[in-house]
Amino acid sequence: MSITRSEGFAFPAVEMTTYKDEPGTWVAVSRRVLNADSDTTFEARYFELAPGGYTSFERHGHEHIVVVLRGKGKVRLGDEWNELGPSDTVRVSGHTPHQFTNPTQEPFGILCIVDRDRDRPVLLDNDGNPRASE
Amino acid sequence: MSITRSEGFAFPAVEMTTYKDEPGTWVAVSRRVLNADSDTTFEARYFELAPGGYTSFERHGHEHIVVVLRGKGKVRLGDEWNELGPSDTVRVSGHTPHQFTNPTQEPFGILCIVDRDRDRPVLLDNDGNPRASE
Repeated sequence: MSITRSEGFAFPAVEMTTYKDEPGTWVAVSRRVLNADSDTTFEARYFELAPGGYTSFERHGHEHIVVVLRGKGKVRLGDEWNELGPSDTVRVSGHTPHQFTNPTQEPFGILCIVDRDRDRPVLLDNDGNPRASE
Repeated sequence: MSITRSEGFAFPAVEMTTYKDEPGTWVAVSRRVLNADSDTTFEARYFELAPGGYTSFERHGHEHIVVVLRGKGKVRLGDEWNELGPSDTVRVSGHTPHQFTNPTQEPFGILCIVDRDRDRPVLLDNDGNPRASE
């Protein structure tokens, strides 16, 4: 597959998966890996947050490079919140606690690029401490 | 720098550089590396083709993952041309001759993600043969 059509951010040729296994740490986020079968050292994932949705508050050693593809939302980096709009780019350095939220009434879609070989996230409570396992 | 504002795709905090050294093989393309100083195995570059612009026709061993961020344009993969619109995604496999063009009256902007460690492109003539050196 050389060209993957967006068709209004539906990417019908790409499998949509659960954002994360841990329920309760996130709300209303879909996940698609746009280059799952490629030979690159990186993965480009499209995450879409429905209105009111949010990703897990988490940290990990690998960096994220995030580019906003659709709509507006917010990002938390440590204790700092910033608003994001179309094509704004965020570098989440390793070990920085982070979370994306969609307080708007429209979908908020982000391209999140990461190294294919990476460590697992540590899920955090609101104070930035690791969550107790369930 | 954690957040790089787009400001209408101007990315004022990011250095804009020459797309390629070889003049005459491309027209009206600007280049910005959105994560030049990051620790990732990949680079995310924003290329913008002005109306009438085109990138070099070239091939190389590394893959490109391209996501359209702005406007519409065309991609040549080997001898096949396809139209591209917003958020369409192209995987250019290694060694595939390729070129992006902007036949429209509006800017055509693409995010092009590549491995940081990669081979140099071979510039091609219209038949797909390596160009004679100048």
